Parts: sequence; C-alpha cells; structure tokens
Amino acid sequence: MAPVYFTPGPAQLYPTVAKHLQTALDKQVFSQSHRSQAFKDLYRRADEALRALLQLPADYAIYFTGSATEIWERSLQSVTAANTYHLVNGSFSKKYLDHAKWLGRNAQALQVPFGQGFSLEQVQVPAGTELLAVTQNETSSGVCMPVADIHSLRERFPEPLLSVDIVSGAPYAALDFGKVDMAFFSVQKGFGLPAGLGVWLVNERSRAKAATLEGRQYTGGHYSLQSLHDQYQQFQTPCTPNVLDIYLLTHVVEDMLAKGVAQIRKETEAKAQQVYSFLEESARFSPFVAEKAHRSPTVLVADVLEKPAAEVIAQLKAQGLVVGAGYGAHKEKQIRIANFPAVSEADMGALVSRLRAI
Amino acid sequence: MAPVYFTPGPAQLYPTVAKHLQTALDKQVFSQSHRSQAFKDLYRRADEALRALLQLPADYAIYFTGSATEIWERSLQSVTAANTYHLVNGSFSKKYLDHAKWLGRNAQALQVPFGQGFSLEQVQVPAGTELLAVTQNETSSGVCMPVADIHSLRERFPEPLLSVDIVSGAPYAALDFGKVDMAFFSVQKGFGLPAGLGVWLVNERSRAKAATLEGRQYTGGHYSLQSLHDQYQQFQTPCTPNVLDIYLLTHVVEDMLAKGVAQIRKETEAKAQQVYSFLEESARFSPFVAEKAHRSPTVLVADVLEKPAAEVIAQLKAQGLVVGAGYGAHKEKQIRIANFPAVSEADMGALVSRLRAI
Repeated sequence: MAPVYFTPGPAQLYPTVAKHLQTALDKQVFSQSHRSQAFKDLYRRADEALRALLQLPADYAIYFTGSATEIWERSLQSVTAANTYHLVNGSFSKKYLDHAKWLGRNAQALQVPFGQGFSLEQVQVPAGTELLAVTQNETSSGVCMPVADIHSLRERFPEPLLSVDIVSGAPYAALDFGKVDMAFFSVQKGFGLPAGLGVWLVNERSRAKAATLEGRQYTGGHYSLQSLHDQYQQFQTPCTPNVLDIYLLTHVVEDMLAKGVAQIRKETEAKAQQVYSFLEESARFSPFVAEKAHRSPTVLVADVLEKPAAEVIAQLKAQGLVVGAGYGAHKEKQIRIANFPAVSEADMGALVSRLRAI
Repeated sequence: MAPVYFTPGPAQLYPTVAKHLQTALDKQVFSQSHRSQAFKDLYRRADEALRALLQLPADYAIYFTGSATEIWERSLQSVTAANTYHLVNGSFSKKYLDHAKWLGRNAQALQVPFGQGFSLEQVQVPAGTELLAVTQNETSSGVCMPVADIHSLRERFPEPLLSVDIVSGAPYAALDFGKVDMAFFSVQKGFGLPAGLGVWLVNERSRAKAATLEGRQYTGGHYSLQSLHDQYQQFQTPCTPNVLDIYLLTHVVEDMLAKGVAQIRKETEAKAQQVYSFLEESARFSPFVAEKAHRSPTVLVADVLEKPAAEVIAQLKAQGLVVGAGYGAHKEKQIRIANFPAVSEADMGALVSRLRAI
C-alpha cells in the first residue's frame, strides 16, 4: 500500500490526478502554446469550473500566479498605497503583514497568541485602512476564522477591501464572496495538486481601487492586478503560466463539481469530527486549539502529551500514514493532520485507529 | 503518430519526461513537504546536475522562481538602484527594458531593428551602469548573440553586472559563466519540460551588490536575491516551489549529462544546418536573419514568401509537424522553428522534407 499523506501541503494528491496527467501527456497539452486557442479554452474552462465550485459572483475575475505567497505581494502592490490592517494569529497571517512592511506600507495588526482566533469585538480597524487582511485558516496553528465572522467583518468595516487567505481552507470554506473583495489559494492543499500555482479571485471593487493607483506607484509591473486582468479578458496570462497545474486544477474541480461541494463539505466535517472526538477523549493527545468554534476542519493540530511528536510521526510513517510536524517552534510537541478532500473517510478512520493504538 | 512540436516554448517535451513523471507519481514525490530532507536532497541534486551541465564556477548559486519573466523583475529589484543598460533587438530584450522602466530605473538602451543583432563596436555602455542586460537568443526574431561577443562585452565593460537572458539558448549556448554575472532561463524551452519554473544562476559579485541595497530599497521581499540565497544555503526556497518541474529538470539534466553536452551541441548545430541550408536554397522560404553569425541555432525564423504563413503552418500541422507562428506583427509572414534537444535529427529531417514539398 502506498502511504497516505495527511500533510498540510504539499499534500495527498487528489485521486484523479494521475489519470488526468496521463491524458494531458497523451494529448501533448504541455507542448501547446500559452497563446493558442487551446490554452484560452482551457483557462475559460478552469474559470467556469472554479466559478461554479466557489459560487463566485459575476464580477469576480480569476488570475493565476506562481504561488499564493506571490499574491500577498501583488495584492499589496496593486490595491494599497499606504494603510493596511492585518489579523495575525500564526505564521502565515504574519507573513502577509511582513510583506506589507517590506513594501513600506503603514501596516497595523491585531495579534493574538498562537493557537487562538479572534473574537469580533476585539477587532477595530482604523479609518483610512485600504486593505483588511484575514487568514480564514491558519495552516501553522490549526485555527480557523468561521466564515460568518468574516462576513461580519465586512458589515462592521465596509470601507477597506477585504482580502481573505483561503490557502488551506478552500474549497471547504463556504465563503460568501459577495461579502469579501478578494481571496486566494494555492493548489497543493485542498485541491490535492502538485505545487506551483496560485489562484487569485478578485472582484470589481478591487479592480477599481487598483485602477486609481496605476501610474502613481509600482503596482507589480507585468504581474499587477491590472496587467493580470488585461490578459484575463482574453483568457491569457502575462507570462507563460504553469499550464500543467491549470490543466489539473480544471479537471479536479470538475471532478469535485460532479461529486458536489455539499458532499465534500459534509465529508470534511465528518472526518474532522472523527479526529477531534478522538483527541478530546485521548489521554495521549489533545486538541491544540481550545476554542471549539476556532478549530479548523481542514488542518487539525494536536498536542502530543507524553512523548516527542517526532516519535509519533515516525511510528505512523512506518504504518504508511504521513502526518505533518508542528509548525516552527511547535515541532517537538505537535502534529498537524490535514483533512483535505483527497483524504477519504476510510483513510482518516485508519489514522484515528493508529493514533488510538499509540 | 503523435505530432512533433517545433514551437519555441512551450515546446516538445524531452523524450524521458513521461517516464520520470510516472516514477515521481509512484514515489509520491509531489506530496512530500518542501521543507523535508527529501526536497533538500532533490534541490542539491538539481544543483549538482545543472552545475555540471553548464560548467558553472563554484561561486554561482542556483535559485528557482515561477518564471524567467519574474527574474527580469527580481534581478532589477535586487541588484540595481538607478542605472541599467539594455541591448534590445526584439520583444523579449524589450521586456527586460520595460521592467526596468516600470521599476523607475534610469534605463538606457541600444536598439537595433527586429531581425538584426549587434556589432560590438556599436555598444557603448555609460559609466555608472549597474546592470548590462543582454539577450543571448531573441525568441521573437531568431537572432542570437554569439557567446564570444558576450564574453567581449565583459572585457570592454567590466563595471556593470552582466545579466544574460538564455531563456531559449540554454543548454546549447556555451556561455563562459566566469565572464558574466548572472543568467536565467525557463524550463519549457531547451529543457523540454512543462512550463512553470524559472532558473536563476547568480555569482558572488551579484550577491555582493545585492547586499549593498538591502534595507535601502524594496529588493523583492520574500523573492529578493538575498532571500533566495538565504534559503538556497539549506537547499530550500522562500515559498513552496514547483517541485514537479524541479524533479523533472533534475532528471532531464542528468539524462543530458549522460548523453553529453558536446553531443547535444553537435546535434543542435547539425539540425540547424539542415534547416538553414534548405531556407537558403528555397524559392518559397528564406532565412529572416540576414547576418549569418547572428542566426540562432535554437530558434530559426523563416520568411514565407509566396503565401500566408498560416497556410504553411496549417499544412504542416495536418502532417503532424507543429511549427510556431512569427512573433507579433510578423505572424502573417514568418514561421518559427524551435531546434531544442527534444527534437531529433530525424524529426528535423522530416520537417525539412515537408517544407521542401510545400
């Protein structure tokens, strides 16, 4: 039996990836020009499928970049000149903040300790904020922000553009894109694809703000929101993109649509429930995130109580179950279990059984 | 018979790509963490193989980006504050210049008409130039700059960092990397891989210049030369890279080493000779580049004399031979024939026979 990867990205490949890759090789898709009609048709198909899966409003556009990390930079360059505000509760929300500082923005943040989420009443966004950056799912700590809270942010702070990092939450997170302005993810997490592609979902309001900054500052050149949008209107990209990943994304999203996003969400919750129930009752593990409403259904972090986490990871690995280490300083004491659509209920059941036996 | 792609990128895949991809899928390489020892070992192996193939001096480092296009931007951000100079003779050398202007640099250029190269005595680089940008092979026009001329530039203009775009010349171009400071390519051309990875070769002199600018300007943040180098020292990357392409690149470069770069160069020249000899004698086609020394061995551009180029392209395509259209405004009148290592002498022979029969 091949090992199953419960790692939070790169992760287990979606079960249909190998088949789609073979079809693409047979059809020589990766030799086709990225300026050809064949590529435009592929981009259009990716656009339609993602739009359907995520229920995107009509004014959204979908751009491709090299990574979600790049979108932190491009979003800040394209739609902000001065003031940003960040909700920071882990390493990835912190990196969005870092990018803003590197770019010389007046970047303010509400920071809470690692493992905690935000209560809405804590959040006060200063007037004049251009971009409010939130991380729907902190891959580092296993804390999520419930989508209802994100929607409330929009009601309470209608002025700034609301940018949502859904890197490790998509496609599970049932975000109402009508209540945010942009969101982004990379494909090696919930979509179960090889790494190397970022996907940026952007509404008209963001584009209007970007247009006011063009010519007044460096907005990202070839990779600015406006440049990406100019190309998008012909289903093209500014430079040669990762066509392989765009092809796989298109087909995997179509597979997900065939299964139904409601079913994927239901399965995700059932699998998460299996793990959290075990962690709650276990004497050897406990859920790291105390507040139940903030426990991520897609990246589950457990404290390992009686032995080094590395021992648990090694034991599981020997049984063909690959889980992630804790992030950064938490490496010694935590494991991370990704609960993405590529992992079946049976796989998760097997993992829980093995954890129970440790 | 599957069609053969003579397109200048994306291009024909190297013959061993499908096999390597299958092995990687079987080994679940694309689920492995990019922070794992397995990834570090892969990066180290890529580094060793490229170093051997290109005969890189010991002080060179090798970084990965999302595209070669991105390297235009990152190189300018990281090693220039004010003055750049560009040799421009086509669309891609022009884009490097554009990037410098977008970034607010004082970007000067020597421009010659499309289809022409440079004679060394024309080139005068102003004192104070930080970066001299040259394009070893203009994918748009089929003009190359002989490597001996590039080496002479270094002798005549020792002050600026010499940055060489080898996007469609590598690995054919026998550049002496001891006589330049950086070079870069993308993998969907001469290396015959799926698009989505840029490779940046950088010497110590470039890094020393980059260090003087850190903290004084935005040098690219997470993607600056210094950030890439910090990660490179542990064979890591700042963000999750295109592991699939890094894996394929490693294995294809090893295949190229097994064949021998001298043999690849010999075959490239023999194939180019076949095509140029035909174009010279043909009444229906002629080589676009007048100056023989500037005719690219890797991207060959032909004027189509008696009919629309699109007709020729369609006729060849019907026979399983896919050639590229002329670039931009030259689309109606030119064809482009990529002569990369993935195209065999027999393939090229078949193409010339068909061209002869048109």
